[in-house]
Amino acid sequence: MRRQLRGVTASRGLALGRARVLHPQALVVEETRISADQVEAELARLHAALDATRGELRALRDRLHGALAQEVGEFIDLHAMILDDPELLQGLDDLVRTGRYGADYALKLQRDRLAAVFEGMDDDYFRSRLEDLDHVVGRIHAALHRRGDDAVEGLAGEILVCETVAPAELAAWQARGVVAVATTTGSPLSHSAILARSLHLPLLVNVSDLLAHANDGDALMIDASHGELVLEPGPGDLAHYHARQAQIGRERAQLARLRRQPTRTKDGVDIRLYANAESREDVAEAHALGADGVGLYRTEFLFLKRNELPTEEEQFLAYRDLVLGLAGRVATIRTLDLGADKADRTGLALRSEPNPALGLRGVRLSLAHPDLFLTQLRAILRASAYGPVRILVPMVSGREEMQQVCDLLDRARTSLQDEGRQVGPVAELGAMIEVPAAALGLGDIVDLVDFVSVGTNDLVQYLLATDRNHEALAELYSPRHPSVLRLLSEVFAFGRRNGIPVAVCGEMASEAANVPLLLALGLRDFSLHPSTLLEVRKAVREADLGSLRRRATTLLRCHDRAAIDRWLQRC
Amino acid sequence: MRRQLRGVTASRGLALGRARVLHPQALVVEETRISADQVEAELARLHAALDATRGELRALRDRLHGALAQEVGEFIDLHAMILDDPELLQGLDDLVRTGRYGADYALKLQRDRLAAVFEGMDDDYFRSRLEDLDHVVGRIHAALHRRGDDAVEGLAGEILVCETVAPAELAAWQARGVVAVATTTGSPLSHSAILARSLHLPLLVNVSDLLAHANDGDALMIDASHGELVLEPGPGDLAHYHARQAQIGRERAQLARLRRQPTRTKDGVDIRLYANAESREDVAEAHALGADGVGLYRTEFLFLKRNELPTEEEQFLAYRDLVLGLAGRVATIRTLDLGADKADRTGLALRSEPNPALGLRGVRLSLAHPDLFLTQLRAILRASAYGPVRILVPMVSGREEMQQVCDLLDRARTSLQDEGRQVGPVAELGAMIEVPAAALGLGDIVDLVDFVSVGTNDLVQYLLATDRNHEALAELYSPRHPSVLRLLSEVFAFGRRNGIPVAVCGEMASEAANVPLLLALGLRDFSLHPSTLLEVRKAVREADLGSLRRRATTLLRCHDRAAIDRWLQRC
Repeated sequence: MRRQLRGVTASRGLALGRARVLHPQALVVEETRISADQVEAELARLHAALDATRGELRALRDRLHGALAQEVGEFIDLHAMILDDPELLQGLDDLVRTGRYGADYALKLQRDRLAAVFEGMDDDYFRSRLEDLDHVVGRIHAALHRRGDDAVEGLAGEILVCETVAPAELAAWQARGVVAVATTTGSPLSHSAILARSLHLPLLVNVSDLLAHANDGDALMIDASHGELVLEPGPGDLAHYHARQAQIGRERAQLARLRRQPTRTKDGVDIRLYANAESREDVAEAHALGADGVGLYRTEFLFLKRNELPTEEEQFLAYRDLVLGLAGRVATIRTLDLGADKADRTGLALRSEPNPALGLRGVRLSLAHPDLFLTQLRAILRASAYGPVRILVPMVSGREEMQQVCDLLDRARTSLQDEGRQVGPVAELGAMIEVPAAALGLGDIVDLVDFVSVGTNDLVQYLLATDRNHEALAELYSPRHPSVLRLLSEVFAFGRRNGIPVAVCGEMASEAANVPLLLALGLRDFSLHPSTLLEVRKAVREADLGSLRRRATTLLRCHDRAAIDRWLQRC
Repeated sequence: MRRQLRGVTASRGLALGRARVLHPQALVVEETRISADQVEAELARLHAALDATRGELRALRDRLHGALAQEVGEFIDLHAMILDDPELLQGLDDLVRTGRYGADYALKLQRDRLAAVFEGMDDDYFRSRLEDLDHVVGRIHAALHRRGDDAVEGLAGEILVCETVAPAELAAWQARGVVAVATTTGSPLSHSAILARSLHLPLLVNVSDLLAHANDGDALMIDASHGELVLEPGPGDLAHYHARQAQIGRERAQLARLRRQPTRTKDGVDIRLYANAESREDVAEAHALGADGVGLYRTEFLFLKRNELPTEEEQFLAYRDLVLGLAGRVATIRTLDLGADKADRTGLALRSEPNPALGLRGVRLSLAHPDLFLTQLRAILRASAYGPVRILVPMVSGREEMQQVCDLLDRARTSLQDEGRQVGPVAELGAMIEVPAAALGLGDIVDLVDFVSVGTNDLVQYLLATDRNHEALAELYSPRHPSVLRLLSEVFAFGRRNGIPVAVCGEMASEAANVPLLLALGLRDFSLHPSTLLEVRKAVREADLGSLRRRATTLLRCHDRAAIDRWLQRC
């Protein structure tokens, strides 16, 4: 019977497929005992499952790239750490060897033991660790029972229906052919939602009652863009689906034609689109789409997922790779932006802070380790011999820090010259503008920078004192706040008056819907993820810059978000 | 032999006394077994010690009041919670009853068990919990071995010498007669340091080698203001001590004469000094010192340290108490400012957040619980029948929130009138300006507020994206940042242009050294802790407002903190 349900859009898109329903279930395992001569075989089975799980996580980690690699990677790193926890492993072995339990039951016992410790602690932090533990235990359990052909079991054309979805699973499911996901709980702000958007995998969340109605094999249509889901769609639904699909296809084709078109407004002003990138694939894609260069190259990946720091040579090769891949377009390399909220194993960042977003991170951490910072600056300067390079410094808050960076950069350059190494003719130096004090104090550092790039993700978070990952504060966290827009307008105006190029590299610049807003405020340089570059180019080409600039006064007089949204609707 | 050592000033002051040296030591307890007939007596001994420890913590908690009560109180609450942990208690009983261990050894075993769990977790968060656990275990251990007369053992005239000092201990030590504290580690930014300053207890930290040289009973002189400590002081030192003491006495007498003097600049401009208060003692002190009223009355104490929410009646009585205590001067009552970083047991605030400073707190939390907020607003409005009251709303970020507050306030007023209850003629409504977006967007809320109060503690933290309690970022966290001063100057100017009174209620306004800075920027209303009111009044009376205002242009042109400090030195 046809049944239509509503949910919340977490990742847009349209899909038609068979339902695959995952009911939430606890790990129910019967007590099994083994004989003495079975112990070694059971241990071998257990360790094979542990190895397989490790391999799975590693494979998952390697498959991630692009804007979300870091955030999602941290979950996976955490799970890999739990899997290597000596307490968990030793306990398991003991239970099999001494207790003579079957591996499954040993796993359950050990899980319950650790869970009892976590649960006794009465603290959300511990309870969220418990979820992670269960996730890992579930993986091991699945590995214990996997037949040889399970691993390649396809889910082609299936739409996953479940209570909740872990970010680490999404990529794997998509690889196995899942075309969309619908969950009964969740939020459009979760990490899973962000990842789904980056994977272009339709995700509808908060579809209550879904599990009560959906059965394996039901036909299912999801129109995630419109928050709709239809069980056993009828002829009308299918006609609608095909019409929408055809339309999406036309839009895609239209976008594809923009690959080699200039990013020029209707009234003939050229806008620069730089790419945010952190992998060779991103750089290649940026190049293919005709980006004006890389506006934000994150270097954290060189430092994460490892126990020791990268050498100068290793960094140099990575940066040179980037520069060569851009074939003469500019590469903006951001120096290390590590903090306690990143899964850093080098011991560089603090292990925990009460407020990591306000902690020892970005340039603060680099200046606390000047030798390490010098190594990175040397590597970047050496790469600058192969093409135009700009150095972007994160989390600058004032002149003192920028002055220290300049001094270290001079030292790096001098030491390279003394060693007779080749350095590029220029490597421009710039500051990320993400700390409000820096946005308000550009005049204090203007003589020390060649360019700036506004990191709106963090800037908005600090200006509104609102954690951008906080699901309960989703309404509050928005770049469309009058104070944010006014400050951006002042920053752009400052850049024009002083001949300092200003880019925006936060997510705000990646959304085509924000293009009229940013153009009106005076932005000319966008830095965004390649996946939305064509949409943004399209929006730029549809914009009349002169008229938008004239309407900026009205925009800056808006007193709240609703007024700003109304202004945008009139564009 | 005389020996002079240097340390870092954590709390200013001068003291002469006998050294009391506490060497750090681990809990070393020999294994003791008891017989079956000793079990009940041993359990009784154990429970007496647990009860005594609970009583100690309670007594300590009750002794705290004033500005720091909340922050320090949270540590004590945490320790009290550990002490009531069922896992800890049950384990202890089992070890005595079933294991037949002596209470001391059972305590050690149970501590080691829990510690093994914490330590295995390889995470700073857990490790800091371990420190708390050890602190509590140490207290129980001491209670197990306390003779009847120990509790009243005086430390009169003694200077405590130790490795580190817990905030919860400081007040107790001072009550027992300790006149100063010197530690070999620590930072002037720790909670202990903040508490020592509020207790006026001299504290010198980071005096390396001190434990190697100091012995119980040594004569010791601390000049914490100058970072100096002298072991076995000679005649010259003692003469210096007496001269300095006489000087301090003269300064105190001078200050005391200011109690009934007006807060008027040299050129005859009256400045308003309001008090920050949260207890009856604070209010009485403010009144005695001639404060112009209360500029910040915190209401969190009504919600913390308890499991259920306060009733309207209970709140009304507390607010009426405040209003009556001020005898006609204005009472500025801040609505609830709770967040995940407060030890809230009512279940109102979230239990944990990745960045509590950027989380669901202040007005966000109140608006998420409108019934609760209405109750508080009703209680405040009812109290306003007894004297002038202003309502101050924390963490406002924009117009939407302020509009919701206005609507709720109207509802509260209407409902009271419908019930025939008396409400004061006016209760002005104001916003705390501590979120940067609000400071930048005063024009968006100007028609909704009667006054504003700048919370510089949080404002600076957000503007600089620097946690104000982060010891490693102490250099960075400073209100003397050019962008902070410029923004303050704009906020003050906005207030003048629009006839909106602007106060500053952060610690910045409590420091006499900042008076010339704030006057130059245009501040007229200070709100500060009563303990520094006379010093600030003195600084105001020594200031020439006209000349300071003329020098503001130079101040606003400073590019870094050093330049601002130089400007201040020329005052």
